[in-house]
Amino acid sequence: MSDLELIKSISQPSPSKIVLVVIDGLGGLPRPETGKTELETAHTPNLDQLAAKGVCGLIDPVSPGITPGSAPGHLALFGYASLTLTIGRGVLEAIGIDFDLQPEDVAARGNFCTVDEAGLVVDRRAGRISTEKCTELCRLLDGLVLDEAKILVSPVRDHRFVVVFRGEGLVADVNDSDPQRIGVAPKSITALSRKANRLARIANQFVAQAKTTLAGHHPANMVLMRGFSKLPHLPSMGEIYKLKAAAIASYPMYRGLAKLVGMKVLSTGTSVEDEFNTLKQNFADYDFFFVHIKGSDAAGEDGDFDRKVRVIEQVDKALPELISLKPDVIVVTGDHSTPAMLKGHSWHPVPIILYSKWCRPDRVSEFSESACLSGGLGRFPATEVLPLAMANALKLTKFGA
Amino acid sequence: MSDLELIKSISQPSPSKIVLVVIDGLGGLPRPETGKTELETAHTPNLDQLAAKGVCGLIDPVSPGITPGSAPGHLALFGYASLTLTIGRGVLEAIGIDFDLQPEDVAARGNFCTVDEAGLVVDRRAGRISTEKCTELCRLLDGLVLDEAKILVSPVRDHRFVVVFRGEGLVADVNDSDPQRIGVAPKSITALSRKANRLARIANQFVAQAKTTLAGHHPANMVLMRGFSKLPHLPSMGEIYKLKAAAIASYPMYRGLAKLVGMKVLSTGTSVEDEFNTLKQNFADYDFFFVHIKGSDAAGEDGDFDRKVRVIEQVDKALPELISLKPDVIVVTGDHSTPAMLKGHSWHPVPIILYSKWCRPDRVSEFSESACLSGGLGRFPATEVLPLAMANALKLTKFGA
Repeated sequence: MSDLELIKSISQPSPSKIVLVVIDGLGGLPRPETGKTELETAHTPNLDQLAAKGVCGLIDPVSPGITPGSAPGHLALFGYASLTLTIGRGVLEAIGIDFDLQPEDVAARGNFCTVDEAGLVVDRRAGRISTEKCTELCRLLDGLVLDEAKILVSPVRDHRFVVVFRGEGLVADVNDSDPQRIGVAPKSITALSRKANRLARIANQFVAQAKTTLAGHHPANMVLMRGFSKLPHLPSMGEIYKLKAAAIASYPMYRGLAKLVGMKVLSTGTSVEDEFNTLKQNFADYDFFFVHIKGSDAAGEDGDFDRKVRVIEQVDKALPELISLKPDVIVVTGDHSTPAMLKGHSWHPVPIILYSKWCRPDRVSEFSESACLSGGLGRFPATEVLPLAMANALKLTKFGA
Repeated sequence: MSDLELIKSISQPSPSKIVLVVIDGLGGLPRPETGKTELETAHTPNLDQLAAKGVCGLIDPVSPGITPGSAPGHLALFGYASLTLTIGRGVLEAIGIDFDLQPEDVAARGNFCTVDEAGLVVDRRAGRISTEKCTELCRLLDGLVLDEAKILVSPVRDHRFVVVFRGEGLVADVNDSDPQRIGVAPKSITALSRKANRLARIANQFVAQAKTTLAGHHPANMVLMRGFSKLPHLPSMGEIYKLKAAAIASYPMYRGLAKLVGMKVLSTGTSVEDEFNTLKQNFADYDFFFVHIKGSDAAGEDGDFDRKVRVIEQVDKALPELISLKPDVIVVTGDHSTPAMLKGHSWHPVPIILYSKWCRPDRVSEFSESACLSGGLGRFPATEVLPLAMANALKLTKFGA
């Protein structure tokens, strides 16, 4: 029995409510001048109080030493582990822009690239054209109908875009056209099984059409395609946890991930206050809320230590509003660390607070990486966060006699 | 290589002795007035001294958030993990009353229930008749011989009983008769494979016979059957650990579980002193002892914080007698938490002391949930307790060259 099957067999619906606040990229590294991380530098009286009442610890999103992307980081927090490994690159890219993928759609990641007169790739990223340029070129390619399949082309960022093939009987089992190096021609897309012949044919037609259309648009005069894939079959949070789950997230990637596991995505604004307001307005209608705070990760990626501190302080300031709703369980954590010192995601474990009437409090009275080290939850895999939250909400029955 | 296979390949017999004391439901939650758990409230000078000399930590019986029943909790402590998932409900019920199941027996759980004149179930538990009444009715059904198979019927508690089918060639692969809801008739028992035809036929004959016999015993005028199963194939502790293992437990469930993994079950009394006396008398004859203290769990289930405190203090008082026997390894822990505040089993991790001449002591000088948090064993799965005890008894050789 896998963990998800175990949880499915013992979970039960109940009126209790869980709020999971994900401060993206929460974990940090100390600034040499002060020896304090972003979280330790931030003035966070409300988070500290919650830490004192609750139980704390540190989570590993994937495993020690592994730096997760946003998808594995979040899917682990939603309690989905190895399953996430089966998500194809094309689907991830579509999720990243919150594209409304249908179960039968095949998605592929596209790059605009530069080819010379001989058709050989000279720049796999077309000089990293602007997102505006990318959007304009995608519009030229979007909406084709080839062999009764509709081709939907959407810009992502810089030279990257998503192609979605929509039609009957499309099987994603084809290879990439991206040769992953320069000086050679893009590869023809070939089917890896007979069932995939139709998709391979259509995809090659699309590439040929794109080459014609883009001829005058140097440096973006060709496309490279990879990661042809369909939506994975993830059981929904409703199925596994019997939760009526809602997501409050202002960035497309996180709305897409939430949708993937069956959450209802609520409309919200871009600030922390907007998101907490959305929580308040919808609090009666769901029993699980995923609230995503993006600013902390963006600041970390920019190497902006002080801005990350300020985002954490904004969350702290808004926290009393959340607490006043009296959820049965509150979890505050991150999907991974994004230390400003590293200007990127990292492998460091992420601090977590779990508060409920039924948690066993520890002696931690401050929300920080170093204080969480002695927390009652210890150090544990992020995939166990949701089962723990469920237990604390008294939504799991006993396992075995 | 599974963990059990690894252990089997490196374990060796030796004269050293291990005593595992399981204080059932040991872990607790703080009483709001004092902020202290049951264990933290109890006066335990001897346990504290053992904690100071030994190494401490916290164990997860199954995994974080999962509340275990007694069977998964104990089998994890005996070092058996996922295998426990294969134990059928009927077998567990038979183990729970320490029924002497034979390898070829098929056991099923039975409920007395109420049916109306049309034969439809109106109460799946027959108004929860008393255990005395249940015992009386079981006597009426016990001992039938149907198609050369003997039917043994034993009371469990309230409306619950166990039916054991003993005969040649009985295969347990049949469905339940319990429809799991009222307003419908009990289901006919059908074979899920051809080999199970014989059992299905006999079980249906038993149900028909029971209906006739119980006709005048409203509300207990019918039976429902589920969880037809045989003993799982668990390798014994002798095989895996090369231990000559004995169990000292006053409750049937724990004797049954010990028997399942090949321990010799010793006769003992019901008090902590009785059990420690049994240990003393048999100390020369075995090299592993499982000593089970039930009172703590019962008190926790009753929500009786003070009684649970007193049971823990009884163990503490008896401990010097155990220590005077000079076992090479002493482990004191629980199979799960049963906080009096929750009146039931819970998911919270369980404190553990491991003492041996070869442990690496930590700075913990008090046996409590909060002190064990900083223990040298950290937080770890309960299935690793026995390998650790074996290592400390110098009963495991090096793994690999």
